Amino acid sequence: MDVKEEAMKMHAQWAGKLEVKSRVQIQDSHDLSIAYTPGVAQPCLAIQKDPSLSYTLTRRWNTVAVITDGTAILGLGDIGPEAGMPVMEGKCVLFKEFADIDAIPLCLKTKDVDELVRTIYLLSGSFGGINLEDISAPRCFEVERRLKELCDIPVFHDDQHGTAIIVGAALMNALKVTGKKIGEIRCVINGAGSAGIAIAKHLMRLGVKNLTLCDRFGMICEGMEGLNPAHEEMSHVTNLEHKKGTLADALVGADVFVGVSAPGVLKPEMIKSMAKDPIVFPMANPVPEIMPEEALEAGAAVVGTGRSDFPNQINNVLAFPGIFRGALDVRASDINDEMKTAASFAIAGIITDEELSKECILPKAFDKRIVPAVAKAVAEAAIKSGVAAVQKK
Amino acid sequence: MDVKEEAMKMHAQWAGKLEVKSRVQIQDSHDLSIAYTPGVAQPCLAIQKDPSLSYTLTRRWNTVAVITDGTAILGLGDIGPEAGMPVMEGKCVLFKEFADIDAIPLCLKTKDVDELVRTIYLLSGSFGGINLEDISAPRCFEVERRLKELCDIPVFHDDQHGTAIIVGAALMNALKVTGKKIGEIRCVINGAGSAGIAIAKHLMRLGVKNLTLCDRFGMICEGMEGLNPAHEEMSHVTNLEHKKGTLADALVGADVFVGVSAPGVLKPEMIKSMAKDPIVFPMANPVPEIMPEEALEAGAAVVGTGRSDFPNQINNVLAFPGIFRGALDVRASDINDEMKTAASFAIAGIITDEELSKECILPKAFDKRIVPAVAKAVAEAAIKSGVAAVQKK
Repeated sequence: MDVKEEAMKMHAQWAGKLEVKSRVQIQDSHDLSIAYTPGVAQPCLAIQKDPSLSYTLTRRWNTVAVITDGTAILGLGDIGPEAGMPVMEGKCVLFKEFADIDAIPLCLKTKDVDELVRTIYLLSGSFGGINLEDISAPRCFEVERRLKELCDIPVFHDDQHGTAIIVGAALMNALKVTGKKIGEIRCVINGAGSAGIAIAKHLMRLGVKNLTLCDRFGMICEGMEGLNPAHEEMSHVTNLEHKKGTLADALVGADVFVGVSAPGVLKPEMIKSMAKDPIVFPMANPVPEIMPEEALEAGAAVVGTGRSDFPNQINNVLAFPGIFRGALDVRASDINDEMKTAASFAIAGIITDEELSKECILPKAFDKRIVPAVAKAVAEAAIKSGVAAVQKK
Repeated sequence: MDVKEEAMKMHAQWAGKLEVKSRVQIQDSHDLSIAYTPGVAQPCLAIQKDPSLSYTLTRRWNTVAVITDGTAILGLGDIGPEAGMPVMEGKCVLFKEFADIDAIPLCLKTKDVDELVRTIYLLSGSFGGINLEDISAPRCFEVERRLKELCDIPVFHDDQHGTAIIVGAALMNALKVTGKKIGEIRCVINGAGSAGIAIAKHLMRLGVKNLTLCDRFGMICEGMEGLNPAHEEMSHVTNLEHKKGTLADALVGADVFVGVSAPGVLKPEMIKSMAKDPIVFPMANPVPEIMPEEALEAGAAVVGTGRSDFPNQINNVLAFPGIFRGALDVRASDINDEMKTAASFAIAGIITDEELSKECILPKAFDKRIVPAVAKAVAEAAIKSGVAAVQKK
């Protein structure tokens, strides 16, 4: 049975990958009077007096909403809210299995930015954090930006920042392997959607100075006509040499290729045109921009993809469970840039000098060291940057 | 330790009365590929093609949202969404413990009717049913009416209909005990808020013909000035003799008193003025309109209250778990009047002729016969009334 068949069979058998569990046994009227009326009035009144008690007297401290509008589900595009649910349930399973976080999947029946923002804000009092998922670009930028302003809990669009954090970690370790310095490299990102732009911003935060974004039409360059607002913004801080041309042109002499684009667009001759010991992350999924063996043959020093069947899998599951665990542990009001940077360093730092090699720049998804290390680093960064409400769980 | 202290202590100890449980173990990358990417794309595509598969490939078939705006929490009034969460979590615990339903508590940060309706509608694709809870009158009427029109899943405001269904069951058995006929009795309901009005409508559906609603200002009578729209509507179908006056006036010669009002408002002399073998349900909680012993002394034949420490507890928990279980089992698109009526008959029917007495007109909350009987009756009524999508679970 192949993966497709097995997934269908198992989804029908599971009949839902999540369920709700009661933490309280209700066996007699005394139990009922404590967990429900009349006793429950007491915690209600206590929270009314001091809203921060919603973090100790209810499950809020450990609960995250996983929210989509169904517009950019996996590589499937706009398949609608109901059809997005299997992915959201899956994401919630990973939150629970990896970080013991109670995550609730919610698929909203609207694509309107104002409505998405308002609906998610109105829900925010019931949760300790919000994970936005699979919302299409460029709408996702505005949805996240406005929600971060409105909400007093962390809002995190994983498709943007989760990917960026892992690429950052992968790059730092790949630079160690190849003996390059982050401030000196030339970096090219192919694909300027939400993930590509988030990766660009994050790599620059980590110290990359020379970075060029490419999209279908080639290099994004300041002053070009017809740039969308997100590309326009990026044009001022990337491609500082104002080069124009194709991806192939951009890659001549570059140290790093990051692909969040389409199968097969990276050709061996492009890799051959790059600087010595090039780092190549073709992350299109399931078929990457170039297959790893071909990239290595063409001279790539380190290769990472989105796939689990090759070394160096660049997988969001390395980041989001620990990031939310850390944010919840200190009741952070935001997941800010400092926390994202700390997460990249924590993930990179898991790989010891003994483990580090061109085939081992990232931990595997099931490495038990990841979540505690990421959560600790993220919580510390939250405290240091002043967004934590408590110092310790 | 009294109930208040114990409830506070236990809520702090529980740190949330619910949690999310994963139904899937994720231990290696094969597990990940089936429950998440790339395998999860298959159930997504299947649901996109046939949306009804969201009921078999995700948890929707067993999932209910318990939603409030925090405006009418218990007897505490408008204490806000965060402070309402302990009650919503408690309600979800009861759904799980009594009927194995996965219920998700959501407290919304708005009191605006349009926003409540829109927000809940936008969420409805993620659930198999919606239980509205503790939304203040008269807003709750419009919220429920509009949602029932918009949504293709059941929407049920438990404060209205749950109470009404139990009062209906209690009345039918109390009539058996006292040898009275439902079409011949005179019935007075004191308290014309959402529960009082829902009880009035439901009792009339069950066959009560002579019914009078009283509020603080006395009997509601057709043509009175200053009636709100809900009272106005009820004035045309109740108090057909067009009486005016106080609750005391209304009760002279009446067979049934139902109280959803305030402590102590029913006086012994009022009961003495009622017809022979009066049925008295003083349900104000925790302090009823009259204490049971006082009502019995004044001549009441059957007394039921909202409290668990007296016989004949009129408690919503007898109804909502079985009602939603039945609705979910046949994937009903609505919980309609036929299903509510079926629920009252099913609850009344649990008490056998041998058990029936003036101190036993209702089953106790922990009677294992309730949920299966109610669910079966409600599912059958859904099928018969044409709102069931499947004939059997």
